[in-house]
Amino acid sequence: MTFVGETRGLSPGLRPHLQEQAEQLSRYFYETAAERDVIGGTPLEQRQAVRDSGLLKLLIPLEYGGHGSSWADIYQIIRTFARTDSSLAHVFAFQSLMLASIRLYGTEQQWQTLFTETAQQNWWWGNALNPLDNRTLATHDGENLVFNGFKSFCSGAIDSDRLIVSAIEADTQKFIVAAVPTQRAGIDLRDDWDNMGQRQTDSGSIEFKDLLVYPDELLINPGPLSSPFSSLRSVIAQLIFTNIYLGITEGALQEAVNYTRTNSRVWSGSLAKNIQEDPYTLLHYGELWASVDAARQLADQAALRLDQAWQKGLDLTAAERGAAAIAVFSAKVNITRAGLDVTSRIFEVSGARATTAKLRMDRFWRNLRVYTLHDPVDYKLKDLGDWALNGNYPAHSFYS
Amino acid sequence: MTFVGETRGLSPGLRPHLQEQAEQLSRYFYETAAERDVIGGTPLEQRQAVRDSGLLKLLIPLEYGGHGSSWADIYQIIRTFARTDSSLAHVFAFQSLMLASIRLYGTEQQWQTLFTETAQQNWWWGNALNPLDNRTLATHDGENLVFNGFKSFCSGAIDSDRLIVSAIEADTQKFIVAAVPTQRAGIDLRDDWDNMGQRQTDSGSIEFKDLLVYPDELLINPGPLSSPFSSLRSVIAQLIFTNIYLGITEGALQEAVNYTRTNSRVWSGSLAKNIQEDPYTLLHYGELWASVDAARQLADQAALRLDQAWQKGLDLTAAERGAAAIAVFSAKVNITRAGLDVTSRIFEVSGARATTAKLRMDRFWRNLRVYTLHDPVDYKLKDLGDWALNGNYPAHSFYS
Amino acid sequence: MTFVGETRGLSPGLRPHLQEQAEQLSRYFYETAAERDVIGGTPLEQRQAVRDSGLLKLLIPLEYGGHGSSWADIYQIIRTFARTDSSLAHVFAFQSLMLASIRLYGTEQQWQTLFTETAQQNWWWGNALNPLDNRTLATHDGENLVFNGFKSFCSGAIDSDRLIVSAIEADTQKFIVAAVPTQRAGIDLRDDWDNMGQRQTDSGSIEFKDLLVYPDELLINPGPLSSPFSSLRSVIAQLIFTNIYLGITEGALQEAVNYTRTNSRVWSGSLAKNIQEDPYTLLHYGELWASVDAARQLADQAALRLDQAWQKGLDLTAAERGAAAIAVFSAKVNITRAGLDVTSRIFEVSGARATTAKLRMDRFWRNLRVYTLHDPVDYKLKDLGDWALNGNYPAHSFYS
Amino acid sequence: MTFVGETRGLSPGLRPHLQEQAEQLSRYFYETAAERDVIGGTPLEQRQAVRDSGLLKLLIPLEYGGHGSSWADIYQIIRTFARTDSSLAHVFAFQSLMLASIRLYGTEQQWQTLFTETAQQNWWWGNALNPLDNRTLATHDGENLVFNGFKSFCSGAIDSDRLIVSAIEADTQKFIVAAVPTQRAGIDLRDDWDNMGQRQTDSGSIEFKDLLVYPDELLINPGPLSSPFSSLRSVIAQLIFTNIYLGITEGALQEAVNYTRTNSRVWSGSLAKNIQEDPYTLLHYGELWASVDAARQLADQAALRLDQAWQKGLDLTAAERGAAAIAVFSAKVNITRAGLDVTSRIFEVSGARATTAKLRMDRFWRNLRVYTLHDPVDYKLKDLGDWALNGNYPAHSFYS
Repeated sequence: MTFVGETRGLSPGLRPHLQEQAEQLSRYFYETAAERDVIGGTPLEQRQAVRDSGLLKLLIPLEYGGHGSSWADIYQIIRTFARTDSSLAHVFAFQSLMLASIRLYGTEQQWQTLFTETAQQNWWWGNALNPLDNRTLATHDGENLVFNGFKSFCSGAIDSDRLIVSAIEADTQKFIVAAVPTQRAGIDLRDDWDNMGQRQTDSGSIEFKDLLVYPDELLINPGPLSSPFSSLRSVIAQLIFTNIYLGITEGALQEAVNYTRTNSRVWSGSLAKNIQEDPYTLLHYGELWASVDAARQLADQAALRLDQAWQKGLDLTAAERGAAAIAVFSAKVNITRAGLDVTSRIFEVSGARATTAKLRMDRFWRNLRVYTLHDPVDYKLKDLGDWALNGNYPAHSFYS
Repeated sequence: MTFVGETRGLSPGLRPHLQEQAEQLSRYFYETAAERDVIGGTPLEQRQAVRDSGLLKLLIPLEYGGHGSSWADIYQIIRTFARTDSSLAHVFAFQSLMLASIRLYGTEQQWQTLFTETAQQNWWWGNALNPLDNRTLATHDGENLVFNGFKSFCSGAIDSDRLIVSAIEADTQKFIVAAVPTQRAGIDLRDDWDNMGQRQTDSGSIEFKDLLVYPDELLINPGPLSSPFSSLRSVIAQLIFTNIYLGITEGALQEAVNYTRTNSRVWSGSLAKNIQEDPYTLLHYGELWASVDAARQLADQAALRLDQAWQKGLDLTAAERGAAAIAVFSAKVNITRAGLDVTSRIFEVSGARATTAKLRMDRFWRNLRVYTLHDPVDYKLKDLGDWALNGNYPAHSFYS
Repeated sequence: MTFVGETRGLSPGLRPHLQEQAEQLSRYFYETAAERDVIGGTPLEQRQAVRDSGLLKLLIPLEYGGHGSSWADIYQIIRTFARTDSSLAHVFAFQSLMLASIRLYGTEQQWQTLFTETAQQNWWWGNALNPLDNRTLATHDGENLVFNGFKSFCSGAIDSDRLIVSAIEADTQKFIVAAVPTQRAGIDLRDDWDNMGQRQTDSGSIEFKDLLVYPDELLINPGPLSSPFSSLRSVIAQLIFTNIYLGITEGALQEAVNYTRTNSRVWSGSLAKNIQEDPYTLLHYGELWASVDAARQLADQAALRLDQAWQKGLDLTAAERGAAAIAVFSAKVNITRAGLDVTSRIFEVSGARATTAKLRMDRFWRNLRVYTLHDPVDYKLKDLGDWALNGNYPAHSFYS
Repeated sequence: MTFVGETRGLSPGLRPHLQEQAEQLSRYFYETAAERDVIGGTPLEQRQAVRDSGLLKLLIPLEYGGHGSSWADIYQIIRTFARTDSSLAHVFAFQSLMLASIRLYGTEQQWQTLFTETAQQNWWWGNALNPLDNRTLATHDGENLVFNGFKSFCSGAIDSDRLIVSAIEADTQKFIVAAVPTQRAGIDLRDDWDNMGQRQTDSGSIEFKDLLVYPDELLINPGPLSSPFSSLRSVIAQLIFTNIYLGITEGALQEAVNYTRTNSRVWSGSLAKNIQEDPYTLLHYGELWASVDAARQLADQAALRLDQAWQKGLDLTAAERGAAAIAVFSAKVNITRAGLDVTSRIFEVSGARATTAKLRMDRFWRNLRVYTLHDPVDYKLKDLGDWALNGNYPAHSFYS
């Protein structure tokens, strides 16, 4: 299966065997993607295949046992996964986001240690950081902290090895972040994710019951939003979303192409003899292509910018961080709109029979519709407008 | 539950108790609509409630035992159903379409007899007429015909009392239509409809195995497309689709309003204190309202035109039929686009939590996406363009 | 010249001879519309033709010497003018808006007297009421008032017989309105309107220098915004804009149809032999038609609602006024968007040669672009959103 | 004046002084752009400034006395001009297109000679090649040819030094191209360009009356469309259009930003205190930015591809040429749609007063509307659709 849109080469630094592995995995996901969309739950076999591929250590530098991939490379692989399975792409992408959080929030010793251990033990990191959900409180117990409460939208927590968790420190009302083993007592993973899309992301809730967190597990030095570099996390996250939206859209377009070529019939009244020459069908495909192509160029450019920003470390200025954020938001806004149009319009170039439940071709729209609601696109537009009109960069936050 | 958009009164002739019955049924459908969307199949209880309501005889004139409703009234009731259950709206609407087919294609004696019997015995008519599927052949057996072959997209055939069926006459390659009892030997209703939307329309297939059709069951005098009046069937059908699309869209908008008011939270960064005053939320709702409102006016106007055309009978001129078709197509095109936007955008005014599977708020989009593919909207636009540019009316066909 | 879209009859009450007169005038305007768009200024000959037609007294009831036309009729005539000359449509429409202001703001004696005199002497009323421009102050001089200062956007003031003027009363900061003769000393009409569109509306400025205003000229009893009925003025005004936008759009579409049929050539690569059968050309025309048609239905419906509201007089409730405003805003929003698309896209169905300056086919877009900025469409959408989400009616103001 | 969107550096190879010169010229054009838009005609002073800048020899390799700029560089400069004066950008860009035609169609000796002379004598080449206009016939007179007839859309012919002309060879009906001095007898430049936009491009007509064309002036070896490389001309041309559309759009956006910041007022009812924080204003700017940004990335990527293709010379394969064409068409389609929206919507963020004729802010839309009609965007979409669905590259033609 060659994907529509694969007209451009790999990103410069990507070693071919990693991309090839990713494509093999993507094809493997595709075999069961429709049926797993029905059942939801945790795709244990597919997760194991990801673990076995070694791709969990993409972000980890060579000297700590990883692949030392660039963000541009990582996003290509995320996108490759998302074309066939945006749930796996989601939890796979969060591995890099969690590692980035450690790098950005923790001390040099913390991230070097955790990166090394992750590479050695092939840990998969799950997410329990949702900053909008402040129901988890941290209280002091000697030098340790104790977490109690709930956390929602914990993507990839089930079947993970380690978790990035957040809480509100009861005394100070400060937002704190920690890295803990998933198996530790006091972490109750709820299997309560049942959604209209992104059905195998396990984005359910966790209840913390007297979870002990040790001082050296706290990622508070320098901590979140402590510098332009530290606040790069949300830029990384937004570009993850962007690439998954893009992958979903490319996957939908490819599915439509396959369907049209093999199944669709030209409508009576067309001046063309077959569907592949039908003027309206070609017009639709042209519009779909043009909008996906635009989003793809933006996503690729944004990744290059992010790599530049990432490499600057603490020297990253607010303006450089801002420019990267603007590039990412522009890409996100474009693919949000393009993707919702494409995943709905694929049916207009496929025809009524493509709606049979068996094909589950609606999953592209459902997955994208769900995931594009992560945070409101209106506010990304507002940020872009503030930049265009006033030259202001986005505020540093967990969403911008 | 009062529906957004109910700012205008009932259509002039509609007797309040019929509309009230329709609204009661619509509320009743709503109670289980989400769960029935999961299971698909035939909604026998709901169908029985429709049967019990007496609404199956809306189109039948008073003198033959029916309600003598106008098309404007019937479309209001179809729309009322579609707001909460577009599958039931679909098969309910097809009752009137099947009766119209009898009226338009059959002799005076045929339609008077069948109308009277339908009213007396409360028959529900199912559809097996799909003119694009020519796999059913009719051969002669003495004075009778024998039908053999398959027919797809037979909405409402299961649990029906009578069927409108079509076949290709083997000798002449002519398209013929007949009205037969569903229970007759030789009609094998397949329970094979499993689709991403319109899941309880039973739009599966039928296999005819030596189905005997008697001469007086053939609706061939004057027969389909025999006059502007006879060809009004597709105009009626297209306005059924239009009203169901509109009802789905109104239902989605109402669902969003309910959700936003009770569950949604304003995003950090808004200048408003609550979601109900949020500028972007209000802008979205304004756009959604404005586009639905336009479609509603067009649908209502088109119904008035159709009633005028219907009342002319065989005196209906091609120009009058054409003007009605243009009005209907314009309404259909508008709601197709507006509805796909609304049913997708309701999530942007509701937020990420509205995507929980429990609510099945995606069913509005799925239902609409499926049903708007009945025939390509591009060709309706082409017909409108041919009218605007060249003053040509749409060709008389089963789709235009 | 028959206009695309003229598929529907005249509005019920409109006496045919008035509509015929309007159409004759519209054709007469068309003869020189392009060249007058070049020169701008005051179209004195065309204004005289309007005066001679007697159409200035449409709104005035029969018993006061007028035509007693409904608003629906008046809007049809405004729209008829706007198809060929939206500047004349504008100043003609303001005649009815000024008379309505007298009716809504003044005492029974005032409006009866002024209506009678207007009918007898065929006065044309100009506008100097712009409520956003508060540079004109009124001070007391005995029992009279003296106006001093500037007023912008005074459409139709030049060559008018009477003016509706507004000022801020210096003592009370109250907004007051008066009806005065244009020729009175102290009114300095500036010929300073030079705009990219609506070039013959004379929407320039006035300087008031010690303008004496007598007590019985003040329209302050009951005065502006004093009741739902009084505040109907902005609803009337918004529906004027709506109908002029619609007329401009219909005129543009007609111009394109004429051009395509007589001048355009099919592009190499089309499957059609001539432009009138070209699939893309027909698709464009279909889309243009469908969006104009929607706006037309909304405008017509809104006019019926406005007539109902107008006839209620002071009995008009806030809810009835609100429902009319919502109908009008919905129409306005739809035609704003549809019209900007149509007036730009007409060139895509006409081709490059249609851009020759001689034709001035850009005037439709320029006129519409200018006039749709009267007040921001975003706030009309917001009002519609507030209605859809919260059931709130628009605030009573000079713009809503 | 710094342009919105100037967040990215110069293209890699561009020598800063050339870009600086271009920006100086662009600012100089801006000073009189609005008033020259009124008068039309030939901007002789500005043309002289371009001549003096030395920028006419950008495409000419260093060894023939030129700047040896890449296409990426040339497009940046074209875009820079187009921000303030799209007429000058047009005729300036055609210099490179005419030189490219010589390179692609002529013998090695021809292009080396003509490039050298152009660099030495600072010739400006005008266009008389319109392949759609076949009214000019070439007949034989001994070894020479004689051209007679008309040619339309001859941009930049007036005040040019040399012309690229085309004709139909009477005997063979073959399309032939030649390079001739503008001053030669038999070339009658008509000053007949008067258009609603691109008013100073002198895109009028030429009449050839017994124009002698010598054998060594014919660019027929290898000639047009003789190879993938030769047919690159239309790709170059389409990317010229793309960059001019983009420049116009960036210029419009900048004009709006300047106006909003200095003149616009927040509407009553906004939750913001000033226009620069108004939610709707920011939303509009965000949308405008996001769509322009997408087009910019596509244009830049397409230029890189074109440079690669250009450097391959006759080794260029059909697939490589096709890939460049697809990239260019995608960029063109995106900016066509984005630009028409931006140049119209700038008024919604500026307000009614921005429509004063003095500012001529409508010129952005008029220029873009005219130029985007060069060839129908529908057929670019169709070509993109044929690529997306069928993997077909665009046919080699003068437009694709």
